[in-house]
Order: sequence, then C-alpha cells, then structure tokens
Amino acid sequence: MERKIGPLQEKIYSVIFKFDTPAGKAFDIALLVTIVASVLVVMLESIPRLDKYHDVFYVLEWIFTIFFTIEYFLRIYCVYKPKKYIFSFYGIIDLLAILPTYLSLVIASSSYLLIIRALRLLRVFRIFKLAQFLKESTVILKALRASSRRIMVFLFFILLMVTVFGSIMYLVEGTTNKEEFDSIPRAIYWAIVTLTTVGYGDISPNTSIGQFLAAIVMILGYAVIAVPTGIVSSEMVKAGREMQNIKIVRCDKCKNEEHDKDASFCKCCGRPLDES
Amino acid sequence: MERKIGPLQEKIYSVIFKFDTPAGKAFDIALLVTIVASVLVVMLESIPRLDKYHDVFYVLEWIFTIFFTIEYFLRIYCVYKPKKYIFSFYGIIDLLAILPTYLSLVIASSSYLLIIRALRLLRVFRIFKLAQFLKESTVILKALRASSRRIMVFLFFILLMVTVFGSIMYLVEGTTNKEEFDSIPRAIYWAIVTLTTVGYGDISPNTSIGQFLAAIVMILGYAVIAVPTGIVSSEMVKAGREMQNIKIVRCDKCKNEEHDKDASFCKCCGRPLDES
Amino acid sequence: MERKIGPLQEKIYSVIFKFDTPAGKAFDIALLVTIVASVLVVMLESIPRLDKYHDVFYVLEWIFTIFFTIEYFLRIYCVYKPKKYIFSFYGIIDLLAILPTYLSLVIASSSYLLIIRALRLLRVFRIFKLAQFLKESTVILKALRASSRRIMVFLFFILLMVTVFGSIMYLVEGTTNKEEFDSIPRAIYWAIVTLTTVGYGDISPNTSIGQFLAAIVMILGYAVIAVPTGIVSSEMVKAGREMQNIKIVRCDKCKNEEHDKDASFCKCCGRPLDES
Amino acid sequence: MERKIGPLQEKIYSVIFKFDTPAGKAFDIALLVTIVASVLVVMLESIPRLDKYHDVFYVLEWIFTIFFTIEYFLRIYCVYKPKKYIFSFYGIIDLLAILPTYLSLVIASSSYLLIIRALRLLRVFRIFKLAQFLKESTVILKALRASSRRIMVFLFFILLMVTVFGSIMYLVEGTTNKEEFDSIPRAIYWAIVTLTTVGYGDISPNTSIGQFLAAIVMILGYAVIAVPTGIVSSEMVKAGREMQNIKIVRCDKCKNEEHDKDASFCKCCGRPLDES
Repeated sequence: MERKIGPLQEKIYSVIFKFDTPAGKAFDIALLVTIVASVLVVMLESIPRLDKYHDVFYVLEWIFTIFFTIEYFLRIYCVYKPKKYIFSFYGIIDLLAILPTYLSLVIASSSYLLIIRALRLLRVFRIFKLAQFLKESTVILKALRASSRRIMVFLFFILLMVTVFGSIMYLVEGTTNKEEFDSIPRAIYWAIVTLTTVGYGDISPNTSIGQFLAAIVMILGYAVIAVPTGIVSSEMVKAGREMQNIKIVRCDKCKNEEHDKDASFCKCCGRPLDES
Repeated sequence: MERKIGPLQEKIYSVIFKFDTPAGKAFDIALLVTIVASVLVVMLESIPRLDKYHDVFYVLEWIFTIFFTIEYFLRIYCVYKPKKYIFSFYGIIDLLAILPTYLSLVIASSSYLLIIRALRLLRVFRIFKLAQFLKESTVILKALRASSRRIMVFLFFILLMVTVFGSIMYLVEGTTNKEEFDSIPRAIYWAIVTLTTVGYGDISPNTSIGQFLAAIVMILGYAVIAVPTGIVSSEMVKAGREMQNIKIVRCDKCKNEEHDKDASFCKCCGRPLDES
Repeated sequence: MERKIGPLQEKIYSVIFKFDTPAGKAFDIALLVTIVASVLVVMLESIPRLDKYHDVFYVLEWIFTIFFTIEYFLRIYCVYKPKKYIFSFYGIIDLLAILPTYLSLVIASSSYLLIIRALRLLRVFRIFKLAQFLKESTVILKALRASSRRIMVFLFFILLMVTVFGSIMYLVEGTTNKEEFDSIPRAIYWAIVTLTTVGYGDISPNTSIGQFLAAIVMILGYAVIAVPTGIVSSEMVKAGREMQNIKIVRCDKCKNEEHDKDASFCKCCGRPLDES
Repeated sequence: MERKIGPLQEKIYSVIFKFDTPAGKAFDIALLVTIVASVLVVMLESIPRLDKYHDVFYVLEWIFTIFFTIEYFLRIYCVYKPKKYIFSFYGIIDLLAILPTYLSLVIASSSYLLIIRALRLLRVFRIFKLAQFLKESTVILKALRASSRRIMVFLFFILLMVTVFGSIMYLVEGTTNKEEFDSIPRAIYWAIVTLTTVGYGDISPNTSIGQFLAAIVMILGYAVIAVPTGIVSSEMVKAGREMQNIKIVRCDKCKNEEHDKDASFCKCCGRPLDES
C-alpha cells in the first residue's frame, strides 16, 4: 500500500529516519541516549539492593515506554510504505520494545509477570540500530555472509564432535563419577565447555582414561579454532578489497545503502543520490 | 566383484544414493530426520529422570534399528560394487549403527551391556553423512589436508611442551601440593588444561614458583595459538582460490565428485556428467 | 611558548631525549633499569611476608622518587617547547610517576593512603617508553589504528550479545539459582566470562535450559573470535607491506619518526635527517 | 680442531647421523623408540600406585642410560668436528640426558636427589630431534623467526597490561578480598590467568568494581589475541611462498639443509648434494 506523503510527513521523516541533517542527527543522538538509559533502568531494577528505588524505576519505565510509543506511531505515520516498516526487522523490534510494559497492566497475575519481564528485556535489541550508523559493520557483515556456509559446516562438525566425545565420556566416567556425568546431554555440555576452552570446572573427569580423553578434546578445541579464523580471515581480505569500490549513501526512496563509488543515481530506483 | 544391475536395483539406487531426484531428496531428508530422532532417543535414555519411559525408548530403538537394517541391506543389494561399499567408511559406520542393538540380545549379562551401549553410541557417526551434502566442506577439508603435515609438527611441539612443563611443574609443586600434582602424567594433564587455556581449576599451583611457571605456560598457550591459525589461514586462501575452478558433480559410475568447471565427462571413468 | 636553547640545554637534551649517541643510550638503559627496579619495589612492598623490610622499601621508594623528580625537571628545562612536553602523554605520565610519593607526605590519614597508593601504581606506565625504542611496534600500532573502527563495531556487538544473553540467563536461572544469578549486571558478568572463554566457574548455570543457553554462548564466543582475528590479519598484511617503504628516524626538531625510505629531510619541518 | 676421518668412523657416522640409508633409518627409528620408552619410564616412576615396580624402573633407567652413553661417545668419535658437536644444542642435550643418572650415584643425600631428578627430566628434550626429520617445521620456524620481534613487542605489551591491571585490581579487591588478592604479584598472576582466557577460578573478584574491571580484562584478552594471530598469519603466507623455491637436503660436510630447488652442490661448502 503506497500513499501520498504530505509536507509534515516529509519533515517528520527527515527528522526521524535521516541522519545527515542537524535535526535528524540531534534526534538520533537523543534516541540513543534514551535507549541506553531505559536499558540501564531495566538492569538496575533487577539488583536486589536497589529494591527501595522500585517506584522511581517504575515511573521512569513508563516515561520511556510512552516516549517510544509516540516515536513508533510517528514512524508509521511518516514512512513511505507503513506495512513494509511494520513488518521489517526494526519495525518488529520497535514494537516489542514497548509492548511488555503495556502487557504488565492487562495481565496482573504475578507468576506471568516474570515471563513478561523476559519480553521486556528484548528492548535491549533496540540498540542494534546503532549498527546502521557505522559503515565498517558492512565490511564485517559482508565477510560473515560470504563465509556463513563454511561456518555452518564448521559448527556442524563441532556439534558432531561434542556429541561423540560427550557420549564416550559418559561411558568412561558415568560409572565412577555419576554425579557430574549423570546423562549424555550433561556429558555433551561438558564437551562443549571443554572444546570451546571455557573450562568452568563444575564438571571435570576423575579417572585416568577420562583425563586422557579430556586432554584430546582440549587439544582438538585449541587447534580447531584455526578453522573459523582461517575462513573469516580470507573472506575479510576479500570484503575489504571490494569495499574500496563502494560508497555508503542511503537512498531516500528505496533505502538501498550500497552504491558504486562513482554513482550519482540509486541503482535500484533511479533517484539522484543526496550526498550532502 | 562387478555385477549386472537390473532395473529394480537401478531404481532403488537412484532413491537411496542419489540426491538430485525428488524421490532421492525425500528419502535423504527422511533418513536424516530418522537418524537425528534415533540419536535423541539414545540421549534421552541416559537421563535418570526419564527412567519411567524406558519401555518406550526400548521399542523406539528397535523400530529405528529395523529401519536402518532394511536400509543397509537395500544399499548392498543395489550398489554397483557391494564389497567396495561394505568396506568403505560409510559402509562400516552403517553396520556399526545397527549391530549394538542386536548384540544386546545375544549377550545378556548386564555388566557387558554397558560396553555394548558404548558401541551403540557410534550410531552418532551416521550424521557424518550430512557432510557429503555440503559443498563447502570440500574447501575446509582441502585446506586442512594441505596443512595437515604442518599441524602435525605443531601438535608434536605442543606435546613436547606440555611434557616438559608438566614434568618441571611436578618437581616444583610435587612436594608441597602432593594431592593435585601427584604424578608426572597428572602434571602433564594440568599443563594441557593450562596451555589450551581451558583452565578447569581442579589442579592449580600453590607455590610462588609454580604460579610463575603457570603464568609462562599460559602466555605461551595464548601466543602459540597464532601458529595453527596462521597455517590454516594461509591454506584457506589458497583452497578458496582453487575452488573457483572446480565444480562438485557426483559421477554416477565412479562417485568422483570434483571436476573441472567446464568438464562434461568424468575425468576418472569417462562417463557423461549429469548436472540436471 | 618557544624559547632559545642554550648549549647546556642542547647537551642535556641530547642525553635525555636522544638514543643514538653513546651518552643517550647509557642514560636510557639506566633509566629503564631504574624504572623496573622501582616497579619491583612497589610490588614487593605489597607482599605481606615482606613486611619486615618495610623501611628498606620506604627508603628505596624515596630514592627513586627523587631521581625521577630531577629527571622530570631536567626534561622540562631542556626541551624545545616545555608546555608541549608537560601536556603530552609521556609528560603527564612522568608527573604521575612522582606525585603519589609526595602526596603521601601531605595527606597523613591512613585510609586515604590506600587510594594514593593506587596512583603510585601508575608509575608502571613509565615502562611504556620502552615501546618507542622498538620499530616493530609501529607496524602493530598501524594495523590496530587502521582496524580500530572495525574493532569498535565488533566490541559493540560483543557488548550487545552479552547484555542480551545475560538478561535472558537472569530470567532462566534467576528463580532457581538466586545466589549466583542475583541481578542482570551479574548475569552480564557471567556472559562475558563465558563468551570470552575465560570460564572461572564462580557462576555457572544449574538448570538444563540454562546449560543449553550457556552452550550457545560458548560456541558463539568460540566462533566469533574469528572476527577480530580476521580484521587484524588483513590489516597486518597491509601494514607490513607499507612499512617496506618507510624508515624510522626521529627528527630532532619536530620529533616526527616516519619518513619515506629515500628521504634526507624531514617532511614535516624540513630539517635534515640525522641517520648516523 | 679438524681431524682425519677413518673408514670405521665414516661408517658409524653414516649410521648415526645420516637418515637416508637403510642402516641410518633403522638406527634413527630405534633411537626414537628408545627415547620415548625412557621418557615413559620416568613418567611411570612418578606415579605413586606403581611404587612396587620401582626396581624394574631402576634397572630400565640404567639400561637406557648406558645405551645413550655409548651412543654419545660414538657420536663424538665419528663426527668431523667433535668440539662443534659437543657444544652444539643437541650435543649439550645429549649430555644432559645421561648425566642425572650418574649424578644420582655420586650424591647420596636424599634431599638433593629430588633436584637431580629435575635434571633427569630434561632427557625429554631428546625428542626435539624428531623435529629435524620434518621438513614442514622449517616453514613454521621461518615464520616464527621473521615475526619474533613483533611477538616480543606484543608480549611486552601483554606484560605491561597484566602489571597495570593486576596492580589496580589489588587496590580494588585487596581490602575486601584479602585472601585471594593478598599481594600485587598474586594480583598479576590473576591478571595473566584472566587475560589469557585460562580462568582457573582459584582467584576471582567479589566486588562489583572488581568484576567490572575483570570484564574489561577478559574482553581485552579476547580481542588482543587477534594481534599475534595476525602477525603469524601474514608471515606464514610469506614463508610458505618462499619455501616453494627451496629443497631440504642435508649436506654431508657442513650439515646445511636449505638449498635452492635446482642446486646440485651445497652453496656453503661446495660438496655435491646426495639426494638419493
């Protein structure tokens, strides 16, 4: 559903969505500060020692929620294709960032409230918007996307390895160390803790054979880390080279951001590119 | 022993071994789901809390085993060279994936059953078949094979280092910390835990000299990880470049999968390549 | 404020600031030894077992402080632009390296003394001067500066990830494991410990869902390390290539250190380069 | 001191030092097996449970020592320049590998014996000889030597960082957590454990500020690992490229091993290269 855009909508759009005008820049910075502040309030609310300030946090939470709600509806009001925005990644996150506070009104039972608080934490995702300001993230994402299939294969092998080693460990340690290696899933958890070199130490082998196996898993994990590193390194070099011929300018119409270095018009919709 | 392939065998072969026809694809997906399900049953069976469902798991296990048995014999029946399949890597794994359940019938004594369960866990290896579907794994394996000799040298040095440092640590800590560093093999286990940066904390030095030595091992482990990473990184770049001139098509006759980009015939047996 | 430099000042300058004359070299080595010795004294003073030598350490500390004070004022006396030196990075560190000992005289209350000791530890930074002797650090710093923006983006994503995973973990484990996961900030601390593969084990999940989530965080941390590695690797190759056309000679006048390989005059101030 | 080499010496030399004749190969393999066996005996001797076999180990140790002693004197007897061999890296290690057992005869006091046992463990170094058989280690060592200066700078920065962070941590945690952070050296040990992502958990911060600082150290350690990796990766690519034009043949006379790919004579002493 396309629609006509009035002058007011154009103005609001330029403030909320653009970040190359003074007003747009100021709005973006204010928004970022507000998001960080609202995330901090959620964090502080969870600290037992600060229970006495509960009312302050409650009021602040509502102020933030109302601000984000107004912002959300302004976005829908001024955008070219509202439906596209609402169902876009950021549209859904914008909605999820305000819903939990309202839901806490409707559903009063305390046991459910805890689950709602879980959704409220998703407000954290708002910060992801920061990423779009940073040109460099494009290089990183490009390299990750190019190597995503290889990394999938790598992760698949890792999962296979921890399953096999976890199962073997369950058989080796399961009889003498029943409390720590009490089931195959727990043994697999141990294998992940060991292979990734995290090494909590909450579960660790006692028998000689178990320690020998654990040593193999450790050395494997230590050497195998070279694989994803090699994958991303080689792609990073490629992505960095390609980025030299690309410039990041956001097209006003279709929002495409990647253009050839010497382009004056958007290659997707033909609009002139505004590089001021 | 070569043999003539009848039309029925051809059909079964195309379903079980090929994955570019609708029937073959459906069979492969069904097989994968079944394998994952059967692995999950083995895992769930090991959880003490789920002991009450033991009978359900027992029945499911038999259903899976019978299904895999039929599949195994169909594979032998329809394949071009049965002997080659039976003694191939996947042929042996296919057999090992069904044997343990049958062995649990013959050998009744409970103490032996635990060892049989160990073999049953090898069914996990079946999933390795997944790998052959993924083209990207060829690049990874190529890079790993090319750098395997260097990684062997690296692992040899790692083993030397943990032996030497473990032995020294045994001498330093052995007198004051007899419980944790009670023998050289255990001290070597500690050195592996530390050098690979796993760091369980079940064995850790108490004396000042011991902690100083441990600090050296840690920094060594932290810096030395750069070596395998460098090895694989440089090979990964090379392998990625070479893969640009190769296509992955499985030859119907000799199963060779790697061909030049512009090849129309298999370079090993001369059969036309079917790229539909 | 520029000023005339007399022959004595020139001489002191050549001893203190230069390191290509015999006198300058000797002074630099003596200074380095003194700095390391004074850092060692601070360290030894903190060991409870060595409390009986407290008086020795106290006297040594004052000797070092007086030596560094004389050196500091000589630097101001002989330098071309004193203001520039005083407010430079090394000027501030030189001052901070002597202040704490004097402050410990003025402020007598014991509780404050501990905070002053914190400042005294900054004397450690003096050693940073070592770096300027080493040409190779230029390559490393070049690569790090070139990739600093990408590393910022990477760190931003890491912070986002630990915030989100920490919050989810607080909801999952907060009810059953109240002592370890008692607030969101502590849960984020756990997420950092896990994602960076440090894994102290002081906080670790107990529930199955918690362990499943922890496994995801571990594998993420294990794979994501490939990103900064890839960034720095690609920049390191570039920086190393560029360094082949650069020589490190310190200009006497403007202190610029990087010049083209065939340069005979400083490209910043025009002075002839002294490469003896 | 050069000397004439008789036919017997030539023969012994070809068996002990060369590894491209059948006799030389057999001797080298026998030697390797003996070294591994003697190392295993030292290890097994340290296990408390195997104390009853003490006599067996004692006899075996003497057999190995006598064998190595004969070998050592044969090496001196047949080598071109005995002095050069005795004071070479392997000559010293060969001597250190036999001395401890003889020393245990002369010095009878039990308390000293423990220190002698420490020297005996150096026999482990013998295995380093294995490395000379493997061509690939040349590439790794080349890359490490080329990047050694950069890695020194990197290690210097790591040491600075752990000193500074350890000292700050001592001030932050020292008052409330006196048992774990009882001195600056121990706090530095903690910083190394954390920065290298080992994370034993034997020392871990309790206060909020301490955990915040620890989080910074962890993220630093997690990101900074990219530096040595980048250094070695870039050098590894270079070394691999250079190795393509080099072949490894050991010159009979001067022992130089690296020659141009098309060389027929040793470039150091002019002897023809024996590539059989």
